[in-house]
Amino acid sequence: MRLRNIPGAEAALREYPTFVDSPLSYKGRWKERFGNDHPIHVEIGCGKGRFINTLAKRHPDTNFIAVELKAEVVLRALQRTEYETIPNLAFIQFDASKISELFADHEIARIYLNFSDPWPKARHAKRRLTYASFLNNYRQVLTQDGEIHMKTDNEKLFEFSLNQFAAERFQMKNITFDLHQSKLAEENVMTEYEERFSSRGQRIYRVEASCLIK
Amino acid sequence: MRLRNIPGAEAALREYPTFVDSPLSYKGRWKERFGNDHPIHVEIGCGKGRFINTLAKRHPDTNFIAVELKAEVVLRALQRTEYETIPNLAFIQFDASKISELFADHEIARIYLNFSDPWPKARHAKRRLTYASFLNNYRQVLTQDGEIHMKTDNEKLFEFSLNQFAAERFQMKNITFDLHQSKLAEENVMTEYEERFSSRGQRIYRVEASCLIK
Ligand SMILES: C[S@@+](CC[C@H](N)C(=O)[O-])C[C@H]1O[C@@H](n2cnc3c(N)ncnc32)[C@H](O)[C@@H]1O
Ligand SMILES: C[S@@+](CC[C@H](N)C(=O)[O-])C[C@H]1O[C@@H](n2cnc3c(N)ncnc32)[C@H](O)[C@@H]1O
Repeated sequence: MRLRNIPGAEAALREYPTFVDSPLSYKGRWKERFGNDHPIHVEIGCGKGRFINTLAKRHPDTNFIAVELKAEVVLRALQRTEYETIPNLAFIQFDASKISELFADHEIARIYLNFSDPWPKARHAKRRLTYASFLNNYRQVLTQDGEIHMKTDNEKLFEFSLNQFAAERFQMKNITFDLHQSKLAEENVMTEYEERFSSRGQRIYRVEASCLIK
Repeated sequence: MRLRNIPGAEAALREYPTFVDSPLSYKGRWKERFGNDHPIHVEIGCGKGRFINTLAKRHPDTNFIAVELKAEVVLRALQRTEYETIPNLAFIQFDASKISELFADHEIARIYLNFSDPWPKARHAKRRLTYASFLNNYRQVLTQDGEIHMKTDNEKLFEFSLNQFAAERFQMKNITFDLHQSKLAEENVMTEYEERFSSRGQRIYRVEASCLIK
């Protein structure tokens, strides 16, 4: 696991008790890392970690794993935890396109995709975290009734994602074109990007997709 | 079949060769009305009929049935045909909530829902033409690979409809948030409402839903 851009970041990350240094070694036995059988929810592209920190504190009976590609961003997220030991939360630096190396089949119960990079150019469609190949990797690691919860400010990414979910036979529900005006607003936990975009008056789109249909 | 509001409208309707006076008598034998085995496509709430007239002329190998609730509106649609005999087009005055009285199981191949009344109040949700009970009636009369093509300017109706299609296990595709800017624009046939709304700069939403998933 090479870290980029911040010299010494690797050492810095290791000082945080919620950081997992060799995540691949936990494949198939994440429950040992957490010391319990609680369901595991994963956020892909956690950014500065506000969302998953809040969720972990709110739901002590769920285990949370924050996956983030960039070491410097993981470090920012860890700094928010102030070296606190949060037993049901783990941060890892990892590329979600290899998620099936990280988890055994059906090891996790939920995936959160929050404000994923939109990759607006058609030729970059394959990089979008809801592209069909990603969805099929998620299906592999998700439990049979596992769910993907996605939100975004980007209408084009949302439209694309609905089509991908439909084409890959995910069962969608709670499709929402304006989360903050919807009945789901109350229980919603905002991310850093969400706060920024919605304070500018932009609407937030959201969908839940489950694997049940094959 | 009682006609409303226009005295003498019943007689006027009957003068048009594309008008079908006793549509229930054709249940299960619409192919006899058309004199061939071509697939039957139905528009529900055809309004003044621009869309279905254009389609009927463009696709002589498909039979089209325009269903419209209001007699005075059917009359306006018929007037557009100028008493012309269009062999693959039939207009009927009928309430789509009783569609299973009009068609035998799997008798039709496609349903068009264009700019259906949005019924914005939550307590009127059951009147929306994409409410679950409507969708299940459509499924009954549609062929196994039959499709529903819906378009609307009304975002709330669209959001509602996507959720209904998903919940009722329809397979969606070509979900489009801005039809006129999409790759489907070229083959699109505009309706009267569509022309009006899009000339005001409003976007058109569109989705195709097929019955395949049960
Ligand atoms: C636009 S930011 C959103 C951050 C956060 N979810 C929020 O809503 O505030 C997207 C994040 O996803 C991360 N990311 C992009 N591709 C990724 C991948 N393949 N695996 C893991 N993280 C990824 C980026 O590094 C970035 O931090
Ligand atoms: C808003 S207009 C749209 C007309 C046309 N499709 C267009 O796009 O220009 C809706 C039409 O649906 C008709 N309609 C509403 N409920 C109906 C029902 N249950 N069965 C048949 N037609 C119905 C109305 O009478 C009206 O003409």
